[in-house]
Amino acid sequence: MKSPAANDRSSDPKHSARATRTAGRQMRSRLLDAASILFKQRGLAAVSIADIAASADAFPSQITYYFRTKEALFVEAACRDVLYVARAAEEHAGKQLSPQDYTRALVDSVLGSDAVGFFVEAMTLTRRRQDLAPLVERTVERLHAEGLRAYAAEMAARGWHSRLDPETSARRFWAIAIGVTLEGHAMGRSADASAAEMLRLLGPQADAPASAARLRVVGADASPQD
Amino acid sequence: MKSPAANDRSSDPKHSARATRTAGRQMRSRLLDAASILFKQRGLAAVSIADIAASADAFPSQITYYFRTKEALFVEAACRDVLYVARAAEEHAGKQLSPQDYTRALVDSVLGSDAVGFFVEAMTLTRRRQDLAPLVERTVERLHAEGLRAYAAEMAARGWHSRLDPETSARRFWAIAIGVTLEGHAMGRSADASAAEMLRLLGPQADAPASAARLRVVGADASPQD
Repeated sequence: MKSPAANDRSSDPKHSARATRTAGRQMRSRLLDAASILFKQRGLAAVSIADIAASADAFPSQITYYFRTKEALFVEAACRDVLYVARAAEEHAGKQLSPQDYTRALVDSVLGSDAVGFFVEAMTLTRRRQDLAPLVERTVERLHAEGLRAYAAEMAARGWHSRLDPETSARRFWAIAIGVTLEGHAMGRSADASAAEMLRLLGPQADAPASAARLRVVGADASPQD
Repeated sequence: MKSPAANDRSSDPKHSARATRTAGRQMRSRLLDAASILFKQRGLAAVSIADIAASADAFPSQITYYFRTKEALFVEAACRDVLYVARAAEEHAGKQLSPQDYTRALVDSVLGSDAVGFFVEAMTLTRRRQDLAPLVERTVERLHAEGLRAYAAEMAARGWHSRLDPETSARRFWAIAIGVTLEGHAMGRSADASAAEMLRLLGPQADAPASAARLRVVGADASPQD
């Protein structure tokens, strides 16, 4: 800590503690960014702490200071990525006009990135490394909870009717995304093929209130086939 | 090869070739049995070829002769296990009397063993080792095809009505089994908790023909709601 000699803000101990925290967060974030790119390209075994440090313009000791082990960094980067992709998927889906397009946008966004594959590797790691499980567990719980919150809010705002109770819908979405991603690795499926498979397995999720939509379009001139 | 000296069957070249093939199959099978037990207990990294050879009362060179690498043996053992468990699950489920009990028996049998967890590790391996993917790919295809065959046969034999087309049902069963198993590793779920989660996500799969059952009971006294 600096001595509180002068009267400028940078020498205020409170201010410099805050600056240190901010710098720490920025370094942590930079290390996670670099790790995410390298791990997704090459996998856990083929990436070293030195590789990540070099790519983030940092020292290897900074990685062990912030994350302790390469495996812990792997898991944290994977959890951050999948939560980020889930939120981006909800945003993209929220712009769609029909329940079908909403589900398709969710599926395309989630399976169109490497994030679920990366997260699947992190989940597999926890089978033998129970010390790494808590963060993955909290991430699965957040995927379920944030998925439920977003889905229930969309249904309510648009007057759509969910075919399943929304919590089961949200949990099933993620279990199928994980299962289809893992099958896709083995089957050599493209992202598009995985998305098509996931849509098939999900089936229709929700229905728009047909009568309300019809009333608006048809007006007074209602014909029987509408 | 032995010289065809005496007239006994063991000196017949054809017979001894057959005996060699049988002995080879038996050794292969013994190595797979030993590998399956050790890999499920300790995981890929913590088991050596020497451990498996010792446990199967064989030489390490026999493992490399039959399987080439530890990873290939891992994948073959995992694929064999999951196909075996799938067949046992169908047999167990085939004895149940209602669609609900049928689905529950399938789920309990499949998630009550380590086989899906073992297979999930094999699937994850193929992401980085595409040379190991073909066997896993064929195994997924067999799980889908044999699941479809068994499910469609049960529906037809019992007069049950599947809510989804049977192929989608069979594929969805396995994607959810894989997704729930992987989540379960991270969440520290028991086999029972994973089975309950899977049943929740599957929902009702099929219906017994209520009217037929009722007709038999009601007989001539059929009421209009039949």
